[in-house]
Amino acid sequence: MQLYIGNKNYSSWSLRPWLLLTHAGIPFEEVKLRLSVQPESAFKQTLARVSPVGKVPVLVEDDGYAIWDSLAICEYVAERFPERQLWPADVRLRARARSICAEMHNGFGALREHLPMNVELRMPEIGAKVLATQPDVARDLARLVQMWSELLDTHGGPFLFGRFSVADAYFAPICSRLHSYAVEVPPRIATYVEHILGLPAMQAWTEAALAEADFIDFDEPYRQSRG
Amino acid sequence: MQLYIGNKNYSSWSLRPWLLLTHAGIPFEEVKLRLSVQPESAFKQTLARVSPVGKVPVLVEDDGYAIWDSLAICEYVAERFPERQLWPADVRLRARARSICAEMHNGFGALREHLPMNVELRMPEIGAKVLATQPDVARDLARLVQMWSELLDTHGGPFLFGRFSVADAYFAPICSRLHSYAVEVPPRIATYVEHILGLPAMQAWTEAALAEADFIDFDEPYRQSRG
Ligand SMILES: N[C@@H](CCC(=O)N[C@@H](CS)C(=O)NCC(=O)O)C(=O)O
Ligand SMILES: N[C@@H](CCC(=O)N[C@@H](CS)C(=O)NCC(=O)O)C(=O)O
Repeated sequence: MQLYIGNKNYSSWSLRPWLLLTHAGIPFEEVKLRLSVQPESAFKQTLARVSPVGKVPVLVEDDGYAIWDSLAICEYVAERFPERQLWPADVRLRARARSICAEMHNGFGALREHLPMNVELRMPEIGAKVLATQPDVARDLARLVQMWSELLDTHGGPFLFGRFSVADAYFAPICSRLHSYAVEVPPRIATYVEHILGLPAMQAWTEAALAEADFIDFDEPYRQSRG
Repeated sequence: MQLYIGNKNYSSWSLRPWLLLTHAGIPFEEVKLRLSVQPESAFKQTLARVSPVGKVPVLVEDDGYAIWDSLAICEYVAERFPERQLWPADVRLRARARSICAEMHNGFGALREHLPMNVELRMPEIGAKVLATQPDVARDLARLVQMWSELLDTHGGPFLFGRFSVADAYFAPICSRLHSYAVEVPPRIATYVEHILGLPAMQAWTEAALAEADFIDFDEPYRQSRG
């Protein structure tokens, strides 16, 4: 099976299923495309051959059957590889994990807009500035800290539900952002962020992101070129 | 179990799990709140007692365990009531159903913004005007027509995957919008929309929406008062 993804430096939605598959040791072929929002781009034209939605990620089975959207891909992978236990085993905890993934899937809009994922970027000054001037970002961060603290307290870490689950893959891009923009968080949250960023799968993604030379301007509100 | 919802006239996210439960004949207690985005509102204060996210829908089990977000609630209901077969039985079709639900969950932004759900509203002139002036809405509509046509062709109707599934509940608010704004669609799509709007559960929702007297101004781009 193939996973179509965007630039590793920028594509937060791609990172989620990629990390899930890689951390779980599930083999797949990666197809990386240079992100673009232009209808005539190679990105859009290549995607049009595999999926009706011109976005990454897309999981394509060997016979061409396509599953799109990061959340639907994670659900499919969890179903196809039940022995990996990618959702919590308990039905209620699984529902809780799905609640927070869904919350991420169409929420945290201010945080996503003002602190976009950019793996190689280190702009500690931006985090403090954005939090001081954008109350919606501060609210998103407060909700994240509350959510993670409660889960880490309840399940004892090191992952949100004790052992690794889709939820950790789903919030991994947020860990990357907190790091890039040096967002101040309580120690327990900082430990979780470090744990996620230190996973071998996450380090592999990071190294590949650093090796990319592309500058995708619509994902770069704070720079004119790569550093 | 209780399902917390917003005004039936306006709350498209609430309709999804409500329709799923009601059409499937699963008993639940409905708790209806008057929508508000104000932090001090009764809506936010009541929700704060059951869920960390100040939004509807929320499903609350009898002992207070909460599941929030329409998609996570639908997944939970499907798991708790497997005999209702609320997702397609085939793993690939299930993945496809999840792809389109996820697409709805954080997509179709232009359609949602310009043609908000408003069950009692009949403004045929707005549909044509919005489609003529908002290319993003026209794109969203084209994608919907393509998606539904393909599924109805493949599975033969009357529902998207043949028999009723979460996917139909998930797109029901779109059917209501197409009707309110008299959006022109191909005959096969019009038949699907009529089928959904004619479901007894959908009619019950509609009747209750018509009986409401509330005017929620942030959901009313086209009116000063109820008609
Ligand atoms: N809801 C989708 C979002 C996917 C998405 O927006 N992907 C971005 C890259 S991270 C993309 O393909 N953008 C191109 C575009 O929007 O035209 C998911 O969870 O997979
Ligand atoms: N992703 C959520 C969206 C829920 C949502 O936005 N609900 C609206 C009512 S339809 C709401 O509660 N709005 C209040 C607010 O945003 O403050 C879901 O699918 O349940």
